[in-house]
Amino acid sequence: MKLLDELQKALAEDRATTNETILEQHSTDESYHTAHSPDIVVFPENTEEVSAVMKLANTYKTPVVPYGVGSSLEGSVIPYEGGIVIDFSLMNKILEIRESDFLVKVQPGVTRSQLNKELKKHGLFFTVDPGADATLGGMAATNASGTTAVKYGIMRDQVRDLEVILADGSAIHTGNMSAKSSSGYHLNGLFVGSEGTLGCFTELTLKVLGIPEHIMAARASFESVDDAVNAVIAILQAGVPVARVELVDDHSIKQMNLFSDTSYKEVPTIFLELHGNEAGLKHDVEFMNEIVNDMNCKEIEFESDTAARNRLWEARHNVAYAFIHGHPGRKQMVTDVCLPISELAGAIKDAREAVEESGLAGGIVGHVGDGNYHILLMIDVNQPEEIEKATKVNERIVNYALARGGTCTGEHGVGIGKQKYQEKEHGSALGVMQNIKQALDPEGLLNPGKIIKNK
Amino acid sequence: MKLLDELQKALAEDRATTNETILEQHSTDESYHTAHSPDIVVFPENTEEVSAVMKLANTYKTPVVPYGVGSSLEGSVIPYEGGIVIDFSLMNKILEIRESDFLVKVQPGVTRSQLNKELKKHGLFFTVDPGADATLGGMAATNASGTTAVKYGIMRDQVRDLEVILADGSAIHTGNMSAKSSSGYHLNGLFVGSEGTLGCFTELTLKVLGIPEHIMAARASFESVDDAVNAVIAILQAGVPVARVELVDDHSIKQMNLFSDTSYKEVPTIFLELHGNEAGLKHDVEFMNEIVNDMNCKEIEFESDTAARNRLWEARHNVAYAFIHGHPGRKQMVTDVCLPISELAGAIKDAREAVEESGLAGGIVGHVGDGNYHILLMIDVNQPEEIEKATKVNERIVNYALARGGTCTGEHGVGIGKQKYQEKEHGSALGVMQNIKQALDPEGLLNPGKIIKNK
Repeated sequence: MKLLDELQKALAEDRATTNETILEQHSTDESYHTAHSPDIVVFPENTEEVSAVMKLANTYKTPVVPYGVGSSLEGSVIPYEGGIVIDFSLMNKILEIRESDFLVKVQPGVTRSQLNKELKKHGLFFTVDPGADATLGGMAATNASGTTAVKYGIMRDQVRDLEVILADGSAIHTGNMSAKSSSGYHLNGLFVGSEGTLGCFTELTLKVLGIPEHIMAARASFESVDDAVNAVIAILQAGVPVARVELVDDHSIKQMNLFSDTSYKEVPTIFLELHGNEAGLKHDVEFMNEIVNDMNCKEIEFESDTAARNRLWEARHNVAYAFIHGHPGRKQMVTDVCLPISELAGAIKDAREAVEESGLAGGIVGHVGDGNYHILLMIDVNQPEEIEKATKVNERIVNYALARGGTCTGEHGVGIGKQKYQEKEHGSALGVMQNIKQALDPEGLLNPGKIIKNK
Repeated sequence: MKLLDELQKALAEDRATTNETILEQHSTDESYHTAHSPDIVVFPENTEEVSAVMKLANTYKTPVVPYGVGSSLEGSVIPYEGGIVIDFSLMNKILEIRESDFLVKVQPGVTRSQLNKELKKHGLFFTVDPGADATLGGMAATNASGTTAVKYGIMRDQVRDLEVILADGSAIHTGNMSAKSSSGYHLNGLFVGSEGTLGCFTELTLKVLGIPEHIMAARASFESVDDAVNAVIAILQAGVPVARVELVDDHSIKQMNLFSDTSYKEVPTIFLELHGNEAGLKHDVEFMNEIVNDMNCKEIEFESDTAARNRLWEARHNVAYAFIHGHPGRKQMVTDVCLPISELAGAIKDAREAVEESGLAGGIVGHVGDGNYHILLMIDVNQPEEIEKATKVNERIVNYALARGGTCTGEHGVGIGKQKYQEKEHGSALGVMQNIKQALDPEGLLNPGKIIKNK
């Protein structure tokens, strides 16, 4: 294989490999999507090496797929057309922390927990927290978000600049270090969420924040999901500045208790968090208390103690894994629609009905402040009828969301799982996306078959 | 003129015109840039008519320039290649207010004050406030911001969806109504700030917010601009959640007092505003008081009374007009660089030196929380040496900003005024922008010559 030789020459012999175990490790993500091996996996150490890989891929007309830790939920990193997978695990350095500018420069292989551990020493934190301990490159590639987006925004909101290696191996910067700019076209926003289909990120400049002065968390229990969602809407409309507001349904609380050794009441529950100064929080908490009590809240418990708060959010973050752990031999299909919040209660009600009708096990959790919820469906991928049932649930809720001004994916990205909904969601705008893809990747080598097909 | 006939047929006889007065009214903006008349001005009433105009422009290979109220500061709406100007003043309807979703749908000709007047009835407000009472279409086209961006973000952050008429006359939607999405490429972000070079906006879906429970404004006076800027940096680093934080230098306060009938002390001043609940604000105000006193503040005055607060912000918004009023016969060149905040004090010091050396009259004001400041330079456009002097000041401060990770335009856009800095700022990313322009406007008819030249 001449390409392998040349890659080994450009990087190092042990950093371009066809080792079967390594190929297999890079053939899947965390989802139910079918595995497919790449032909070669490379481990670059710097921008120049990524550029060299891309140039060789171009010469040999070979597909290139960037890879972080493989925590994608929609098959975004599975190399269905083979070719080269670029594993960014060796590009995992925090390059610079600019405290007074609230900025950090990192390589794409840095994970969010690695970054937060370092930032903590400076009294800072990075806001975006998807369930997985994903890499920041991967989070930018899928435009990830998580529990704090309701207050601090999504991944796209944190990206000030990306160094990107384009299809021809050249490097560009998509932004700068200032807080805002009206210069040129907004390439930051375009490349974030492009899932490796327009280029590979080799450096990210991200916005960070000071750790809040005071934090207060709460768990509020309700008799029905409907009551819980309506309470969230009331809290938001009252202008209470929540930093997190998460719905966990009774099925999910049950799995959570089994997996995380918690003993939360097994009813629909809202997990909340408020950030601010002590006096302001006290007022907000009182106000929120009044609101949830008006909305048939059965019980609300506050946790200002750090350990209890951490336990609560760790349990919330681990819900997906709790389901996987509780259903050995099964994989997870996670749905990800997002709607205008006025449509959310109806959507979740319909979603629960769809799950019941399917006969599959599944919990509902959601970043309800953003109108985003997930069904965690457990399926045996060796039983085609289970995949079919889960797909039917997914189709039903996506159609429900699209009919009401929503989107098929709030935060997981398109990959291959949401590709079939792209035309319905974007209509003729899909043609514009195809034109952009064509202009930036004329040979169709960048993560081919993901998001949209080349023309 | 066959094109005029066809336009009159597609719209109405009086809504496609070559009337000299109307052509002249559409030949300038609010800047010092040279005027140039279009050949025809059209006044469409709906999306279909805009589409018809675009199709005819395509048939006749005629340039098209969208126009709001002409408040651009960089020549963005001046039709230097003639052709058709689309005046959106008849498309000025607020189409829908979705209170519980904090969303509003408007036509592009709605102005920000028109929108806020209507929103007030619902307890809501639209956050972005450039100096001019611009149209929302124009604000989206230049990615405008203003005094509240430090807390609520810029125009791009508020746009959930745009209906856009593309170069071929077809319509697309760039987004949806949900709070977040990872579906497809981020066309919202790409079209916002594209200044009519990629398409014409015919409908905007924008995020709005509840009017804050409590508002507190303050004026803090300092001996030097340096002290003032350092105080702002200290306030931000302490995590005080300011909603507005504006620098007005002594020259600008003087003009302000003359124009707005205020009697503020004529020294470098910070105008501040905090939004929140009463208890939280009280705490923030005390904290802020301590900080500014540590930073050599000579005097701080708080205004919680609505009338005094409104007077303060009206005076601030009118500074640019105060200078124009105070220098009859002269036009204004407004600079607009933005830097990482750690570089701001040095930048403003250098800017003041540059103004002094030029011998021109000029004040400095700025959205200093974002690292964005403006020099308001008054020039006689009939004296070429004055334009040259002002251009030299602009070049010096742009180069200063670009060398320190900044941008040549924080909020005014590129138009023609900032075009010469695009290559220096974006480097090889400019090639990507050109490819996108080429892909979306192959004939080069959309606001030609703005932002970047066609290939």
